Amino acid sequence: MSMSREQLARVRINPDRLWRDLHETCEWGKGERWGPGETDIGMSRLALSDADKSARDWFVATTKSLGCKVKIDAMGNIFAIRPGRKDGPPTYAGSHMDTQPTGGRYDAGILGVHAGIEALKTMNDHNIETEYSTGVINWTNEEGARFPQSMISSGVWAGAVTLEKAYSLAEVGAGTATQRSELERIGYLGSLEASYKVNPLGAHFELHIEQGPILESSDRKIGAVEGVQAYRWYTITVRGRDCHTGTTDFRNRSDAMLTAAKLILHSHNKAAELGCLASTGILSLKPGSTNTVPGFVQFSLDMRSKEDQKLIDLENALRSDFAQIAAGDEIDSINKVGTKGRGCSVQWVMDTDSPATKFHEDCIECVEASAKDMLGVSAESKIQRMTSGAGHDSVYTSRRAPTAMIFVPCRDGVSHNPSEYCSPEDCANGAQVLLGAMLHYDRLRAGKGA
Amino acid sequence: MSMSREQLARVRINPDRLWRDLHETCEWGKGERWGPGETDIGMSRLALSDADKSARDWFVATTKSLGCKVKIDAMGNIFAIRPGRKDGPPTYAGSHMDTQPTGGRYDAGILGVHAGIEALKTMNDHNIETEYSTGVINWTNEEGARFPQSMISSGVWAGAVTLEKAYSLAEVGAGTATQRSELERIGYLGSLEASYKVNPLGAHFELHIEQGPILESSDRKIGAVEGVQAYRWYTITVRGRDCHTGTTDFRNRSDAMLTAAKLILHSHNKAAELGCLASTGILSLKPGSTNTVPGFVQFSLDMRSKEDQKLIDLENALRSDFAQIAAGDEIDSINKVGTKGRGCSVQWVMDTDSPATKFHEDCIECVEASAKDMLGVSAESKIQRMTSGAGHDSVYTSRRAPTAMIFVPCRDGVSHNPSEYCSPEDCANGAQVLLGAMLHYDRLRAGKGA
Repeated sequence: MSMSREQLARVRINPDRLWRDLHETCEWGKGERWGPGETDIGMSRLALSDADKSARDWFVATTKSLGCKVKIDAMGNIFAIRPGRKDGPPTYAGSHMDTQPTGGRYDAGILGVHAGIEALKTMNDHNIETEYSTGVINWTNEEGARFPQSMISSGVWAGAVTLEKAYSLAEVGAGTATQRSELERIGYLGSLEASYKVNPLGAHFELHIEQGPILESSDRKIGAVEGVQAYRWYTITVRGRDCHTGTTDFRNRSDAMLTAAKLILHSHNKAAELGCLASTGILSLKPGSTNTVPGFVQFSLDMRSKEDQKLIDLENALRSDFAQIAAGDEIDSINKVGTKGRGCSVQWVMDTDSPATKFHEDCIECVEASAKDMLGVSAESKIQRMTSGAGHDSVYTSRRAPTAMIFVPCRDGVSHNPSEYCSPEDCANGAQVLLGAMLHYDRLRAGKGA
Repeated sequence: MSMSREQLARVRINPDRLWRDLHETCEWGKGERWGPGETDIGMSRLALSDADKSARDWFVATTKSLGCKVKIDAMGNIFAIRPGRKDGPPTYAGSHMDTQPTGGRYDAGILGVHAGIEALKTMNDHNIETEYSTGVINWTNEEGARFPQSMISSGVWAGAVTLEKAYSLAEVGAGTATQRSELERIGYLGSLEASYKVNPLGAHFELHIEQGPILESSDRKIGAVEGVQAYRWYTITVRGRDCHTGTTDFRNRSDAMLTAAKLILHSHNKAAELGCLASTGILSLKPGSTNTVPGFVQFSLDMRSKEDQKLIDLENALRSDFAQIAAGDEIDSINKVGTKGRGCSVQWVMDTDSPATKFHEDCIECVEASAKDMLGVSAESKIQRMTSGAGHDSVYTSRRAPTAMIFVPCRDGVSHNPSEYCSPEDCANGAQVLLGAMLHYDRLRAGKGA
């Protein structure tokens, strides 16, 4: 018999066990120490490394000890399934255990995977029988740090990336290992096809630290994530002409660096005006001498918006404005003062196009219901619907199964950094909401009979 | 008996001989080919290399064959002296034969040295007896490309740089050679003290390509150079905080790259307002990832002005404005639109401080008189007084002897580049004005009796 909503709300995870398990597995792939505390150490657990193998072995052994059936697919994605009453694809918690080379203990998806395991442990503690089976997924190489394409294995599962492409992806740097050779080496090249068709998900819930400062700065505890921003990455090349900084007056320059500075500033101004984001994280120039005006500058432009159309509007505006600014024409106030030179050319090359993702309303509502169960009377002011700025495996699962994410605050919004930090309370809150969301969704499925 | 001004004006150099000699010595240290023509090849003749030794040997042999006495000082500076009637320090033409690693055939001072030798050859051709002796100087390592301090050997001569410092300067890159070890190796460590006290100059005239587009774009043929701009080089460090480009809204960013873009644009705007120059030729950032807002940016700021005080005014304005712009305050229109973030810090570190140089009025007038002799009725519209944007050995000689420079146009203002080009006509014009200026100055000295 299904649990009543009141019964469900009383099922609580074990915060100490979650914290202990999480930091125990972080012994594999320990990174840089950033503080004096016992766990003030970052992570460097690259996908399919020996450290990742150890974490995977722990994942398999632990979930088997909980009575789970474990399946490994051709991308090394691991599915641990706790049986339910009925047949049908499981309701999963999923994330990943690989990290950035200088990452932290919470993001990557370490917290998400551990919270999923804690959810299963709690169901066992309370002898909970779910209507449909439940489970935890460890997705392979979400970070794309070692094999440079993020979310690639959930991408293969979703049919968005071919197995051939994923297998042939070689590690960054001087190495020759591929995803396939490393999967074989560490014993995680599974026989199950990596496909939503043969291995469907009933639902996918992913707990993650926010990686931004919004929850913390607004004193909220839970983000019910409605989707993931659209983003496009471009490489912008500005071409002018090298000249001597001392002998060339402003009118006779084609200063690629000055032009790039104007374009970067304008991209910010325009994005702010349209409610989007624009950022430059990489810039290189030539020839690179104090007394030579650079004739060549290349920079990255990362544009984001909740809405695909807004992103396209921003891009169209910038394409037109960049050309005019580089030519020396007046656009907003950018060329208002200073001396007009001989102009530069601007070239755009697209590197990545990732449309906006909308999660499933049923799943989002289960997250909210679970958060309300936990927070009680203060729930109203502590829960926020939000959009994820970064990509996650849930982007791909949402194409093939009902999906939502749960965000918890992280200190100063820092992530992808050894010092990233999520308090024991926030870790526990996240795991609690994850468990509740899975159980709510199970009730919902039971009610719908699907 | 001294020549009359009319006689003097009729003494003409040999353009073909100059052109032939110049390109003959450019066989030593040939660089990159940039065009189909016989001499469309750049230069790579680093100071005190084997190629430089060959050029020096040619210089010594050639000037000796003209009847010159040759002296070599402790910095390898070579002084070739053609005797005059009276005792007293010689009236020199001087420049240098070393080049940038990817330099051209005119700048460096190759043209200046060859024009000086052509002047002596022409005096011989016409059996001219000067009142005081005349000569040509080849200064060592003006470029500072191999041993990284430009104009260092004229600096030692002028007492501005110590011999110890100059000797111990090691070559850039992985090598271990010093200026002293290389002077010894190629046989140019002279016994004469490198000092204006024991080896004074009567005057120093230096012919150089303009390295800028002003003469060419205004259709003038000769620049009478009044001095050299003041310049200061700074390394500017902007510190913010790394954050994720997708998860951090603009208000919560400390974006060092956006801030640097604003500072670079503002340095241009302010310099234009004050009639100065400001340029950024180097920029680096960390961590350098498309989806990470950089928390660290460092860039070079090269500021120049004809007047020391104007340069100081510019610097003072920028020091104040940079701090306010980085903090997000409104300065001019830089922070007018866009979203105010959490601010960044700005640090200034001085790398070079080179005050303005004023050349000697007597010498400048001799250059103008010589140019008028050559250009005749069109002189008025073809001669321009100007300030050198770049440093030259004349900066140091002017501290210890009357000095002026002569500029001739170069194509598109390009220099420090294999494709730099000065036409045979302009090379000849420069050599002609150089010869005339030396002879005018000799007449002036004779008149003054000094």
